[in-house]
Amino acid sequence: MSMKLYYAPGACSFVPHVLLELIGEPFEPVMVKLHKGEQNEPAYRAVNPRGQVPVLVDGGETITQILAIVGYLNDRFPQHAFLPTEPLPRARVMERLAWLNNTVHTTFTHVFMPYKFVDEPEAQRQVKAFNVNVYRGLLQDLEDFATRVIGQGEPWLGGARVGPLDAYALTVLRWGGLGGIDPTGFPTLWTQANKLAVHPAAARAIERERLQLNLYRPG
Amino acid sequence: MSMKLYYAPGACSFVPHVLLELIGEPFEPVMVKLHKGEQNEPAYRAVNPRGQVPVLVDGGETITQILAIVGYLNDRFPQHAFLPTEPLPRARVMERLAWLNNTVHTTFTHVFMPYKFVDEPEAQRQVKAFNVNVYRGLLQDLEDFATRVIGQGEPWLGGARVGPLDAYALTVLRWGGLGGIDPTGFPTLWTQANKLAVHPAAARAIERERLQLNLYRPG
Repeated sequence: MSMKLYYAPGACSFVPHVLLELIGEPFEPVMVKLHKGEQNEPAYRAVNPRGQVPVLVDGGETITQILAIVGYLNDRFPQHAFLPTEPLPRARVMERLAWLNNTVHTTFTHVFMPYKFVDEPEAQRQVKAFNVNVYRGLLQDLEDFATRVIGQGEPWLGGARVGPLDAYALTVLRWGGLGGIDPTGFPTLWTQANKLAVHPAAARAIERERLQLNLYRPG
Repeated sequence: MSMKLYYAPGACSFVPHVLLELIGEPFEPVMVKLHKGEQNEPAYRAVNPRGQVPVLVDGGETITQILAIVGYLNDRFPQHAFLPTEPLPRARVMERLAWLNNTVHTTFTHVFMPYKFVDEPEAQRQVKAFNVNVYRGLLQDLEDFATRVIGQGEPWLGGARVGPLDAYALTVLRWGGLGGIDPTGFPTLWTQANKLAVHPAAARAIERERLQLNLYRPG
């Protein structure tokens, strides 16, 4: 029985989506249309009671949470070395993934879905505006990190191999465009996103999700 | 050179604090007084530019982020089995840790430090009130999980061994008290927190941090 991935176009499920394409074994991609609210329907709540993507199903077992799925795919397919094997380099990738997950990602949630944090429309507007600025600073932090890594001669953000950091960085850079932040203002991240986009495995995921990298509209 | 842990009393640094006590090798605990703003002083920003705890220093290397530190200590001291070794059970613990970290923890930040999400005092008050309710629901989710695990005859939330889930659960339950949520209203979590508090390793961390488990004040 092949693995199954529940994903939404452009969501953080892009990270395991790319990893599954890198693994190269057949898997069943199942699109969840967030804009139609499918994540709130009983059928999807039966898959994931929290109504979130991604969900990986393997051998009938359901795994949620990016960091857990990345670790699981790394354990199941160690030949792909999605995470370094030595404790310190592995911790370095994990701390960056954890930060993307608990800080960058959650900040964007305030921009995209401020109603998750406060009821009143005026307060939502304020929360959104405040967090666009925070998000800009976080992208700059990620840009500085990326520039340091690439400056050391590494081809990818996790080092020699393409992996979860590259896919997560593309995702949060692309989200910035939705929030009015020009992705080309972060030259290393923008170069790396375009490089990832022509990597054959990532290109398949991008085509399936029909992603445009630059969603920024000036004005 | 022994490991060093930068921690703040009652913060999520309690998680690696307990793990280091479980490991049992000498380590240097360094208290960061958040209420005095020490995390914003140049001395601490030199340790962690983000001004957060925990920070683990090992062999001159600085590691941030709970999930990275837990993984690192697990890799360095596999005999303690802080994480299961098999892919699926490991993913189960990781998905719960990731959820605690990116959802439960970040929700409490809205209660405790709403100024991190919006400027205006009235909007801050609304964000805080909204998220106290969200937090109550998340503690109930954690209570249901804990009740399921303990109902299966396991002594600890991660299974047979005391570990990071137990320390994180105690931490977020205790935080609830600060937000006006009675921890004894979650009987399994409350029982487990009290059980952890008398485990010798955790008891040493609790004594060093001078933690009271129940911070709830009715009214």
